[in-house]
Amino acid sequence: MSHGGDLDAARRLFPDAPEPWIDLSTGINPVPYPCPPLEASLFRRLPAPGDLAALRATAAAAYGADPAGIVPAPGTQILIEILPRLLPPTRVAVISPTYAEHEAAWARGGHAVVGVPDLAAIGEAAVAVIVNPNNPDGRVFPAAALRELAERLRARGGLIVTDEAFADLEPVESLCPFAGPGLVVLRSFGKTYGLAGIRLGFAVAEPVFAARIAAALGPWAVSGPALAIGRVALADAGWRGEAALARRADADRLDRMIARGGGRVVGGTALFRTADFEDGPGLFRRLGEAGIYVRRFEAAPSRLRFGLPPDKGAWCRLSRILR
Amino acid sequence: MSHGGDLDAARRLFPDAPEPWIDLSTGINPVPYPCPPLEASLFRRLPAPGDLAALRATAAAAYGADPAGIVPAPGTQILIEILPRLLPPTRVAVISPTYAEHEAAWARGGHAVVGVPDLAAIGEAAVAVIVNPNNPDGRVFPAAALRELAERLRARGGLIVTDEAFADLEPVESLCPFAGPGLVVLRSFGKTYGLAGIRLGFAVAEPVFAARIAAALGPWAVSGPALAIGRVALADAGWRGEAALARRADADRLDRMIARGGGRVVGGTALFRTADFEDGPGLFRRLGEAGIYVRRFEAAPSRLRFGLPPDKGAWCRLSRILR
Repeated sequence: MSHGGDLDAARRLFPDAPEPWIDLSTGINPVPYPCPPLEASLFRRLPAPGDLAALRATAAAAYGADPAGIVPAPGTQILIEILPRLLPPTRVAVISPTYAEHEAAWARGGHAVVGVPDLAAIGEAAVAVIVNPNNPDGRVFPAAALRELAERLRARGGLIVTDEAFADLEPVESLCPFAGPGLVVLRSFGKTYGLAGIRLGFAVAEPVFAARIAAALGPWAVSGPALAIGRVALADAGWRGEAALARRADADRLDRMIARGGGRVVGGTALFRTADFEDGPGLFRRLGEAGIYVRRFEAAPSRLRFGLPPDKGAWCRLSRILR
Repeated sequence: MSHGGDLDAARRLFPDAPEPWIDLSTGINPVPYPCPPLEASLFRRLPAPGDLAALRATAAAAYGADPAGIVPAPGTQILIEILPRLLPPTRVAVISPTYAEHEAAWARGGHAVVGVPDLAAIGEAAVAVIVNPNNPDGRVFPAAALRELAERLRARGGLIVTDEAFADLEPVESLCPFAGPGLVVLRSFGKTYGLAGIRLGFAVAEPVFAARIAAALGPWAVSGPALAIGRVALADAGWRGEAALARRADADRLDRMIARGGGRVVGGTALFRTADFEDGPGLFRRLGEAGIYVRRFEAAPSRLRFGLPPDKGAWCRLSRILR
């Protein structure tokens, strides 16, 4: 499966491109949270149960959820791998197109998976997976409809998984306060806070199911530095509010630049914008030859996804291609 | 399950003990590898496939194994959780007493688990788990016998898992060069290098099985800082050799101190020593009241395990109790 963030792959595709590359292939905030100083002991000792409990409490406050239902993990990806293994094989509907690892992980877990275009098409599936807001098109699903769906699936012994990886900086109604029987929410840390390398993400679930997820991870899956950084950053609502405004302004600027470059923006979030172009593959190549790596989609060649340029130089280089 | 390293638990047991506590409840090297400076980008960007491949190559050289069979993970613990879920329910024998998470994880995975005293007692089990050298008693199993057992179990569709968590600093013949069908080896990083907080460990297996373990972890389970630190440290055979000598000297000193305190050392490794005492619970309490936390064992009250004191002050405080 191809993913963003792999500049070695970009270099193989465009060996003559100028360095340094501008990596716009992910939706990671290019203005990271200012990391607090990290005590040496965070690297040296095993994370203690108290460290984990403190992070759960902070995350619960940030997400409006019950601390007993919060499971910290070394990134959301591993939660996407674990969830399908906790349920007996069943029928799973993933609202698509979306982040491809959901369908892949449920299929690897032995489930019968179909991609469906919208909530109405979920049919007889027992499990529904919804990325909200969706990646890459930014589609938002109304919380009321998702809660109603969760009730319906719960009644037939199933559940919905909503992946709120990009919800932090959006005016999206989170389902975290409603996590419970029939409803599991995933939250990412690294994208919003620009710290994808530390590996931190959360499942929010009913406490009994949360305990099963936690058992699959074992007691020390999250590193000491990630626990400490997450605890400080998630408590900082002020930074999050300012980041939402600043990245939204960046996203608007990027939309204008894309439009000037002949693109039709189909959606996105404050951290990435997705657009259709008359000649998507041609633009992907022109960008690549200029050392700018964006995300393309095998199933939709006219479509490209742009992360936010990290600095003035990157905005300028992008602007020179998109005109 | 009770684990070492949880000083909050120690504080609850001995609320009047002097601070700071001396934590001798783990087998973590108290003299950590000198961490290289960490670039900010390691925290910010997603670890790239190339970063992972570089660590696998370094680990392969350090362990004498095939890079294609190496799976980096955020600590060995999560590998202990994953392995039982990759095999259909079967009969599992764990050479016991040992690190309790092995039996627990195979039981959670739906297998029929028995603890057995030695290799001869494995009987008709399809899977055998051997910690080598064993924790907490330091028992070492001959490589030839383990390889023969692996062949035998492989013939009946099973395998052996050898956990070499404490092998790095010991004169123990590693099975890593022989990892393949029927033989999976686990290697820890944090104990030897005194960096348990970064969460890094490895499975060494036949490449096809390694790919299944890697799929269960997903593409970015190990953090950027852990990948970078692991790559530098595992390439540093000189440091490892010096650490083996220095910690062995510490272990000998600890043995003498334990003997002076009336203990009979039953074994251990260069990173911990295990001893029986006439009044184990009494000594555990005297140590705790003095702010020194050691490992006790519910099933063997006379037995205590001591990690290495980290500095001169800690040696002195321990010496005052053990006399």
